[in-house]
Amino acid sequence: MTSRLNDRSFAKALEDEREHLETRCRTLLDALVGGPPVIQEAVRYMLLDSGKRLRPILCLWTHDALGGSNRDACLDVACALESLHTYSLVHDDLPCMDDDDLRRGKPSCHKKYGEAIAVLTGDALLTFCFDILASIRERWVVRESVIIETTRAIAKAAGTSGLIGGQVLDIMEEDIEHTKEMVETIHRQKTAALIAASMEVGAIVAGISNKDRETIHRAGVLAGRAFQIIDDVLDVQSDEKTLGKTPGKDVRDGKLTFPSIVGVDASKKEAFELIEKAKWELGAWGDLGPLVALLDFVVARSS
Amino acid sequence: MTSRLNDRSFAKALEDEREHLETRCRTLLDALVGGPPVIQEAVRYMLLDSGKRLRPILCLWTHDALGGSNRDACLDVACALESLHTYSLVHDDLPCMDDDDLRRGKPSCHKKYGEAIAVLTGDALLTFCFDILASIRERWVVRESVIIETTRAIAKAAGTSGLIGGQVLDIMEEDIEHTKEMVETIHRQKTAALIAASMEVGAIVAGISNKDRETIHRAGVLAGRAFQIIDDVLDVQSDEKTLGKTPGKDVRDGKLTFPSIVGVDASKKEAFELIEKAKWELGAWGDLGPLVALLDFVVARSS
Repeated sequence: MTSRLNDRSFAKALEDEREHLETRCRTLLDALVGGPPVIQEAVRYMLLDSGKRLRPILCLWTHDALGGSNRDACLDVACALESLHTYSLVHDDLPCMDDDDLRRGKPSCHKKYGEAIAVLTGDALLTFCFDILASIRERWVVRESVIIETTRAIAKAAGTSGLIGGQVLDIMEEDIEHTKEMVETIHRQKTAALIAASMEVGAIVAGISNKDRETIHRAGVLAGRAFQIIDDVLDVQSDEKTLGKTPGKDVRDGKLTFPSIVGVDASKKEAFELIEKAKWELGAWGDLGPLVALLDFVVARSS
Repeated sequence: MTSRLNDRSFAKALEDEREHLETRCRTLLDALVGGPPVIQEAVRYMLLDSGKRLRPILCLWTHDALGGSNRDACLDVACALESLHTYSLVHDDLPCMDDDDLRRGKPSCHKKYGEAIAVLTGDALLTFCFDILASIRERWVVRESVIIETTRAIAKAAGTSGLIGGQVLDIMEEDIEHTKEMVETIHRQKTAALIAASMEVGAIVAGISNKDRETIHRAGVLAGRAFQIIDDVLDVQSDEKTLGKTPGKDVRDGKLTFPSIVGVDASKKEAFELIEKAKWELGAWGDLGPLVALLDFVVARSS
């Protein structure tokens, strides 16, 4: 499957999509997030002007690649995904969790606003995600079943068998076996579940069949596992400026990572193989446009 | 409007309903909450075997009082409300928030499982709430619009203009004006929003009109304000064993409470008047059965 990763058009498409997301996130924040100024400010501080936006763009480009015609509703869903992802970063950075001072190239939420507001900002971003989904029909024409299936897929990926479960294992590094199987389990839960859901809900909005949904989900799990392996590698190999968060932290914290089990080279090889498998899963759809380049970007990125 | 607060049948009805909720919560936990054992255990520790269950019972008895015929779906919605309420307790008790060691008569979540797991347990309970709602149609026959409207009402009540906003103001006691208007604002957001939503979603499941929904919501806000005033009074007047949480804490923490502004007697008077107004709002429906006794219980309770 041909990738257009090195095309200038890919970089431009990525940049344009980020701008669409930024604009839509602002609109949704203005419409749905009120209350005390400090929490509105903290939510905006975390959600706007930064981030790779990988999950929402995977959602949008899966929708487009499958011939979906409801981009407006899909942009709302994409913003909901980014809000959910951002909540997980805010809570993961807390002193009682990974205790990280830097996120997306700026002070993490609790460094800027204190721990209490950071807990509540994460809570607000998680709640905002579901509020966006439940209010989509107030803004766009979309089938009720699409909203419910999308909400269900995201809630499942975010729950104790997904994102939250993965984070539980991640902070229990002293109590778990340091094996390749365990690191794969953690990666599947803390990262691949939401990345797979991102592609899946793009497909749901595009209106594809249940059988095809499963294929998309499988491809998403493979891409998500590749993404997290590269994240682990970048923690070892990158610098703070490029990464936008504290590098070398996993090693210092004794975290179970892919490179800590199989080494950096074997990790990279595994990530590239997983992405090839993901692309193979999607083969039936023929030309998927920039989605293929985006999958390549998952493993070729430097931050 | 006649109350049956002193009837033994009311106490029995309350007890029976708590058992229904307990059973249903267990079923939903078994079906939807997987992942690492420690997080499953912590979620069950907080959600099961305790609590007044006021919000879910308000939801169920509003549904019943309005002639609703979908009790099975409504029980799921009620469990979702209790899960959401419990998440807010877990996060409010954290050391960086209200720092409370006791909740529902036992060690609070972070005292039992540590801060990191407590943050994640709150996250899990909040996510579980929305997962219950999004998966109801996998268990019961209910209209899609009912699910979406219910989810929207709950997300709104839980957000930065509701529960989260109220908690933000509550922890900012040093930076806000200590006036009756401000304490009312806090009560409306941190308590009344979710209590009103509880009655409102019971009404939505019962299938009532939008105009009637607004009336129910208004009654719920009044009841919620009365509930929080009595909560403030009990903090001053009750003991740890009866209360199940640390008494006198609001005063020690310098919290803005109703009694701190107008005194205990005027607070009680205000709460009783609010409940009378709530019952007046509901007057059009005639005999509301145990719902009226439940509203009286909101202000007559001792814990």
